[in-house]
Amino acid sequence: MTASPVFALTPGEPAGIGPDLCLLLARQAQPHALVAIASRELLADRAAQLALEIALIDVGPGHWPRQPAPAGSLYVWDTPLRAPAVPGQLDPANAVYVLETLTRAGQGCLDGDFAGMITAPVHKGVINEAGIPFSGHTEFLAELTHTAQVVMMLATRGLRVALVTTHLPLKDVATAITAERLQRVTRILYADLHDKFGIARPRILVCGLNPHAGEGGHLGREEIEVIEPALGALRAEGIELIGPLPADTLFTPKHLDHCDAVLAMYHDQGLPVLKYKGFGAAVNITLGLPIIRTSVDHGTALDLAGTGKVDTGSLQVALETAYQMAASRR
Amino acid sequence: MTASPVFALTPGEPAGIGPDLCLLLARQAQPHALVAIASRELLADRAAQLALEIALIDVGPGHWPRQPAPAGSLYVWDTPLRAPAVPGQLDPANAVYVLETLTRAGQGCLDGDFAGMITAPVHKGVINEAGIPFSGHTEFLAELTHTAQVVMMLATRGLRVALVTTHLPLKDVATAITAERLQRVTRILYADLHDKFGIARPRILVCGLNPHAGEGGHLGREEIEVIEPALGALRAEGIELIGPLPADTLFTPKHLDHCDAVLAMYHDQGLPVLKYKGFGAAVNITLGLPIIRTSVDHGTALDLAGTGKVDTGSLQVALETAYQMAASRR
Repeated sequence: MTASPVFALTPGEPAGIGPDLCLLLARQAQPHALVAIASRELLADRAAQLALEIALIDVGPGHWPRQPAPAGSLYVWDTPLRAPAVPGQLDPANAVYVLETLTRAGQGCLDGDFAGMITAPVHKGVINEAGIPFSGHTEFLAELTHTAQVVMMLATRGLRVALVTTHLPLKDVATAITAERLQRVTRILYADLHDKFGIARPRILVCGLNPHAGEGGHLGREEIEVIEPALGALRAEGIELIGPLPADTLFTPKHLDHCDAVLAMYHDQGLPVLKYKGFGAAVNITLGLPIIRTSVDHGTALDLAGTGKVDTGSLQVALETAYQMAASRR
Repeated sequence: MTASPVFALTPGEPAGIGPDLCLLLARQAQPHALVAIASRELLADRAAQLALEIALIDVGPGHWPRQPAPAGSLYVWDTPLRAPAVPGQLDPANAVYVLETLTRAGQGCLDGDFAGMITAPVHKGVINEAGIPFSGHTEFLAELTHTAQVVMMLATRGLRVALVTTHLPLKDVATAITAERLQRVTRILYADLHDKFGIARPRILVCGLNPHAGEGGHLGREEIEVIEPALGALRAEGIELIGPLPADTLFTPKHLDHCDAVLAMYHDQGLPVLKYKGFGAAVNITLGLPIIRTSVDHGTALDLAGTGKVDTGSLQVALETAYQMAASRR
């Protein structure tokens, strides 16, 4: 950590609302220097469309900002588009541009230029259409940073939910919950709560896989055969775990007030509550990377690009979270 | 519906907190006549233990109350215990007693003596231990009323969540979601929202089965192959359905503000949000029965019986809901 950290912000898909969000955000001053890695021209055009007066200040390798930009201005590391960007109209020609902004941000974090990166949404479909296999920010950054396993965690003020499995068909979830995977994910969650969130002794609440956490084996045996033994081994390593608990009663103050994160077994077990609680103000955090990366929890919303009818809540929380993580990092 | 409806209240397991809740509730007057179907002696003993002065007023077949009981009193249809009840100590000898209270309540609803029944928790284990196969209130009442299919719905103020599958191991959920089951459950939900909740044209939000509702087939094909066609057929019958939508973004005001109930595909997809939102004030409603039945959403809490350290919130909402349903019934 440097004394005055600089953060990278990637507006992502140029036809989506990412550029809009970054410009709307620049109306207020940020507590840290924040560098948008994007086409200067794109940002200028979108600002004009939104009738926003935002001064774009060029920065780049060798001349990084030394202080936060004033309200109404945004630092930009100009990264040229490959084709003109039209709000709402995806163009595979710009897939290379999008990935270049991510590479610049990720590599800049690895090189120590940036204390962390915050990402606005990309569009997976159009990148794949351009002939570049791409399954998401997370996987892209894992590869860039040579990370074998990452963990997806969503957070909002007062609640963090990490997932053992993420984007799997429901029918494949039960067999994917192996002791090995559970332990790998839990160790990463524990380490990052400690190392990146500055929590001295993280406490993790673990959901069961089955309804009522299996109810003593009556509603499924994975808790008894897989989860309990795996948690036992982790406890023996000194990791403080509560559970497995029934997911429908775990998300109540009695339990949540005494934990730092919830570990859910699968996507729709953990995220509905998180997004209900944090509506419009949730952040997606990739754990396990050697860098700090946070993201908005929504998509490109192509139909809203250029309209100004967008909510910066999630991006605000993504920024706050990255700042806090960088400050807490050990 | 009579002009002054009478409701049945079953305190359930005598060693649990059910009797306590009924007595605590009787401190305030109810808007309708409410008959506790329980052992008079049990209630008197428990009241003494809790240092509550509650007048127990005997009622029964042929002499039902004509008006609500005053604050500090409770109508009782005396149903003798088979063995003395000790708070916290289950006794299989009383299993027959517990089932008799349920039979009296259910049959009384069928006979028109009661406008609805509200149940406090029973303990499945001890009833089975007594040699009586019993898988829950719901199944017991379905059998008593000769109902082939019931639907479990949980509700709290401002949100109702019904389930397509309930107490199934997670690994069995995907194959249990058939078009036939989905249609059967949806029709019952629609009919009961109309008939018992008085909603002229119910609107139902339907969750997908897979994360992101399958994301166009990339994360599972059940939405395309099973759910969409089933919903199409239901729409052709005039049932208004929205979905299938991703469960993690469905529970947000944008969607919830315009619906009467959410239909979740499985237990831990729908109930965590419901119980998070309605903590301590959620009610379990059995749809599809010819009678009105609501229940608390918690267990017997054996360790708290006789202590007075219990929250009547869920029972309050169960009562309110039964009253509203009886008043709205068509």
